[in-house]
Amino acid sequence: MTLRDRPIGVFDSGVGGLTVLRELRRQLPGEHTIYLGDEARMPYGPRPADEVVGFTREAVRWFTGQECKLVILACNTATAVALEIVRESALVPVIGVVRPGAAAALSASATRAVGVLATEGTVRSASYGRALRDLDPLVRVREVACPALVPLVEAGEMRSAAALTAVRGYVGPLIGDASDAVDTLLLGCTHYPLLREVIERVAGPGVRVVDSATTTALAVREVLASHRLLREGAGDSRHRVFATGPRERFRSVARTIFGEDLPEVEEAILG
Amino acid sequence: MTLRDRPIGVFDSGVGGLTVLRELRRQLPGEHTIYLGDEARMPYGPRPADEVVGFTREAVRWFTGQECKLVILACNTATAVALEIVRESALVPVIGVVRPGAAAALSASATRAVGVLATEGTVRSASYGRALRDLDPLVRVREVACPALVPLVEAGEMRSAAALTAVRGYVGPLIGDASDAVDTLLLGCTHYPLLREVIERVAGPGVRVVDSATTTALAVREVLASHRLLREGAGDSRHRVFATGPRERFRSVARTIFGEDLPEVEEAILG
Repeated sequence: MTLRDRPIGVFDSGVGGLTVLRELRRQLPGEHTIYLGDEARMPYGPRPADEVVGFTREAVRWFTGQECKLVILACNTATAVALEIVRESALVPVIGVVRPGAAAALSASATRAVGVLATEGTVRSASYGRALRDLDPLVRVREVACPALVPLVEAGEMRSAAALTAVRGYVGPLIGDASDAVDTLLLGCTHYPLLREVIERVAGPGVRVVDSATTTALAVREVLASHRLLREGAGDSRHRVFATGPRERFRSVARTIFGEDLPEVEEAILG
Repeated sequence: MTLRDRPIGVFDSGVGGLTVLRELRRQLPGEHTIYLGDEARMPYGPRPADEVVGFTREAVRWFTGQECKLVILACNTATAVALEIVRESALVPVIGVVRPGAAAALSASATRAVGVLATEGTVRSASYGRALRDLDPLVRVREVACPALVPLVEAGEMRSAAALTAVRGYVGPLIGDASDAVDTLLLGCTHYPLLREVIERVAGPGVRVVDSATTTALAVREVLASHRLLREGAGDSRHRVFATGPRERFRSVARTIFGEDLPEVEEAILG
């Protein structure tokens, strides 16, 4: 297998990273992909940092065994606490979703006031605030931990009354006429694009809801092009999806993202 | 000089690329930079494609002579017609501004309707439409050639009545209540961020005005990191600015962008 023909690895703690995989497949249709959801140990959000670092290391090692040419940490929690650490020892480029998300949000904001919805772990790491202020020292950032959202998505309850109530509770205080209201909401967890409809409804037309998928795919494309590893063309690309732990639930939630286009879910063992 | 300590080259036909340089310096404060404005032959917008390709080749060769580790084509016209061609033979990564701009605009748009303001050459190349549709096949794109804007910026008349009139003429038909109105305006020329104030005023609060500087800096960071060539830290970075042709005018317009922070403008000879 030539280097160029090797797959791109996409990692998440669960199904959320499939939103990144979907954009990646759309934007780089020539690339083979391998997705790994660490369903057995999700969610990562509430876990201590050193545990997330350990799991992410295991995942990157697993992707190396699959001969991936590049790995995407399509998980904000893993990016926030483990990206710089795994990059040091990784044999291939590793791309996270925090900086791409921050760049997307700051590009979209007119008032330079950005709200970040994320897991507890991501909020605790303060990595979005840091990434956004790296881009613009004067940006105002309000990070909100949304612990109810990942379980709702993983339970497939994206359109439930419970989802609406939870989103109202998290988003309500960020919007409106107050002087500290934001004009852009960054979905700082790859599960949240599956709640985009309800988040946009609650946020209203004056607020843009931004995720990291498009700019992450941009970063992947530019990095691969710079290494002359971009696989152009389309039509013959292969896609595999692996999960640790209970594959039945993974499959049913994943199908709401990919529809019938989801490959058979294979079993992976980490650790 | 270690590879990591080599400068990043930033190329534009004139002063416009300084808006990209400004963001790059803010976001990658550890990096040395060399800017080159081909003032003697600007504007590139109305020139035939093969001429722009030739000039861009000369610039990339010049940056190689300056030992740059990466080159940014901070010129939409050059990116649109020459990026893929110069990439083939370049010895270092070359990053353009079209794909980053497209990714920023699509991240920001809620209605998936994007207006692109650009030079005639960029509009003629249709490269923004292509880049945007690569990201989302269903996006609606309206590209508008704005030949009056670069001369206004290069004349330093960013706040003039003539600028307001010109912007009204280009932006007016894209906005409002019509069913084909856009909700996002992409500044498809690196001169246009200098007109952001008047463009935002004309576009009104419902439209987001997006440029490519932040996402271009993101691409640069990720590419350098993947090659282990990112220069972290800050404080000791060096910046040089070169122009072909009349440096007096270049300096006076450039000062409106960088204020007193602009280095001495040195002379470059291309060709």
